[in-house]
Amino acid sequence: MLIENARRGTVTPEMKKIAEAEGVDEQYLLREIADGHIIIPVNKNHTSIEPMGIGRGLTTKINANIGTSKDCVDIDEELRKLDVAIKAGADTIMDLSTGGDIDEVRHEIIRHSTVPVGTVPLYQAAIEATNRQKAIVEMSVEDIFSVIERHAEDGVDFITVHCGLTRQAAGKIKNEGRIMDVVSRGGSFTVAWMIHNKKENPLYEYYDRLLDIALSCDMTLSLGDGLRPGCIADATDRGQIQELITLGELAQRALAKGVQVMIEGPGHVPINQIESNILLQKRLCHGAPFYVLGPLVTDAAPGYDHITSAIGGAIAATHGADFLCYVTPSEHLRLPTVEDVREGVIASKIAAHAGDVAKGMQRALDRDIAMARCRKKMDWEGQITTSLDPERSRSFRDSRAPADRDVCTMCGEYCAIKVLNKQENWDL
Amino acid sequence: MLIENARRGTVTPEMKKIAEAEGVDEQYLLREIADGHIIIPVNKNHTSIEPMGIGRGLTTKINANIGTSKDCVDIDEELRKLDVAIKAGADTIMDLSTGGDIDEVRHEIIRHSTVPVGTVPLYQAAIEATNRQKAIVEMSVEDIFSVIERHAEDGVDFITVHCGLTRQAAGKIKNEGRIMDVVSRGGSFTVAWMIHNKKENPLYEYYDRLLDIALSCDMTLSLGDGLRPGCIADATDRGQIQELITLGELAQRALAKGVQVMIEGPGHVPINQIESNILLQKRLCHGAPFYVLGPLVTDAAPGYDHITSAIGGAIAATHGADFLCYVTPSEHLRLPTVEDVREGVIASKIAAHAGDVAKGMQRALDRDIAMARCRKKMDWEGQITTSLDPERSRSFRDSRAPADRDVCTMCGEYCAIKVLNKQENWDL
Repeated sequence: MLIENARRGTVTPEMKKIAEAEGVDEQYLLREIADGHIIIPVNKNHTSIEPMGIGRGLTTKINANIGTSKDCVDIDEELRKLDVAIKAGADTIMDLSTGGDIDEVRHEIIRHSTVPVGTVPLYQAAIEATNRQKAIVEMSVEDIFSVIERHAEDGVDFITVHCGLTRQAAGKIKNEGRIMDVVSRGGSFTVAWMIHNKKENPLYEYYDRLLDIALSCDMTLSLGDGLRPGCIADATDRGQIQELITLGELAQRALAKGVQVMIEGPGHVPINQIESNILLQKRLCHGAPFYVLGPLVTDAAPGYDHITSAIGGAIAATHGADFLCYVTPSEHLRLPTVEDVREGVIASKIAAHAGDVAKGMQRALDRDIAMARCRKKMDWEGQITTSLDPERSRSFRDSRAPADRDVCTMCGEYCAIKVLNKQENWDL
Repeated sequence: MLIENARRGTVTPEMKKIAEAEGVDEQYLLREIADGHIIIPVNKNHTSIEPMGIGRGLTTKINANIGTSKDCVDIDEELRKLDVAIKAGADTIMDLSTGGDIDEVRHEIIRHSTVPVGTVPLYQAAIEATNRQKAIVEMSVEDIFSVIERHAEDGVDFITVHCGLTRQAAGKIKNEGRIMDVVSRGGSFTVAWMIHNKKENPLYEYYDRLLDIALSCDMTLSLGDGLRPGCIADATDRGQIQELITLGELAQRALAKGVQVMIEGPGHVPINQIESNILLQKRLCHGAPFYVLGPLVTDAAPGYDHITSAIGGAIAATHGADFLCYVTPSEHLRLPTVEDVREGVIASKIAAHAGDVAKGMQRALDRDIAMARCRKKMDWEGQITTSLDPERSRSFRDSRAPADRDVCTMCGEYCAIKVLNKQENWDL
């Protein structure tokens, strides 16, 4: 198990690879893994992936959600999304399938993926309850744990579990008054379950059982924020912060047992609250990696939520968020298409990279400097290959080809760089 | 003239409209105009537009650049860009034409536009020199001023003039060492002219003549940043700040004469430097409106610079930038298409709105709350009409129609909102 190895001072092959890829010291990596500040989400039953680290001092990573829904069940389309997402630079994939044969989709995605795979087992437990003509709220505790065990055995590298969503936290959103209440699916299922069954959240109550399953195959827990705000007006309220306090306690318990853990975060957050949200998470959760969904900085732009979340994600990364969940242009409107997935991954990559640039990470700065030098030299091939999406750069440039090949059709011979490059050895 | 009226305490019809549209007090507007913190760029020769204010306490505005280039001369396409930009929400248009009959394009754009129009007269002066078989650097001082007079008479509402780009400032970029030197076209022409002619920048040297022209028709001066950084590594360097100091002095001189003025800003700036850039401009230029180009938060994403600049623009607006110049997906690659213009305007609108939300501007918050309430009620028609781009929202939703019309194809019956809405009068 990774944390145990780190504590013993054993540098595993995964750690070696990551230290080299990220340009960090192996001893640094050992210490940060042992302290729960860095995770390497690899299930020991999932041997076919490239290991990848998330957390303090490493480049910001991004996740792409794919998966079927009840209305759209097409495994081939989901596998195309997987390919496109990885090609565009997704560091992990989450399979959030809720339609068709969910086990089959997951097996296919795990088999095809070259990056770590995450899931939300509660979805499947809820769907299997409805498949047995029950209501979601009638699923049993055993139903939930049996799905979690299945995912662990299948080799899922990390699972979202809404363990911190207690009756107390949910009560606070009711008591304070929210516009949108609960917008997390796992969160909504959990709150509805607690209301109906008049019981505590089973993933909180039987958390030790969950830790044992996770430890058995070194599956990482992504502690979900079931009460994440679903609109700007609900951000950073009592319910959200109450849940975060509990997530911090649960992260500490996981670490004590040697289970890798990260914390999920909002959601919809106005720009002026993002930095404080990161600071709070880092303090309350003792530096555990922070995995944010967006955040989306306005509610008013469906169709463009890859942009609203790239804005939030870049600011979050700047202030220390470690892992960004992409959002596609289709968010709030439909299940994303393959092209949406590509657009979402690229927007999220831009956010992560801009955050790394802002933090002064040398490899990120170097990439921008390489581009700047190509621009100054009017080296177009260099600009294309250095860009985040060379294919698009080339197609845009070629679609309106300039008469002079050393410039582009925006400025032509009036190119600022060309005009000044003509002035040799100038001084003023 | 607007500033004179404000100082006399005369509320003009333009001020009345703007006070009402923005929900600010008329006396506040008078004081802020008199102090040079708010401008209303309307040339007295341009009577066909809706007046619009830019500056402290008003919503963040956005500009869309259009115009021909040497490689792409098609007035009809430019007029389509104008229409699309205004429909998508551009508050002003700049005609940056450098190809074809530049006077004709400008006349057509001024005639068709319902929003203020800006230009960069130096481009035309340079092009007219080359049309006379001269080099750009051989244009005369009279050439420059005669084009400025022509634009003023035509009714151009604001012109970019790179008056602060002195020999001293340009010398600093040479002396310090920059990767990209000058990327502003007007800046590059000016530096090359100063090198070739061994003279000071004429727009600095004869600044009073420029002020007289501007005052004659209440044309606003947009003091350009010819040394704006063209890459992350060049941001906030000595040359940029030296020019900004001079722009502050020139803004003060303009205000003293009753000429409306705003200050242009970068450019390529890493996220961690944006707030300081705004603070510096506001302090050095005594609160003059700040018009930023982007800023782009990374150099590495050509093809997606509407996103890199939406990130920077949203952060800039949050910290007090008043006016955002859009950037299209085609930036750095080609003259933008009509569709690029639309994408650029929407991305910039999102940035401006997110900034207004972050600043707690009530009208911006209200729009997000309206969307959130529609989502909670699963009112899809309301969500579509409240959204920034109703057409896209509708087409996305309709393209994958859900079996149950109260949800969407992302979650179907497992919709978090629907699941919890079923639990009536719950408490925990």
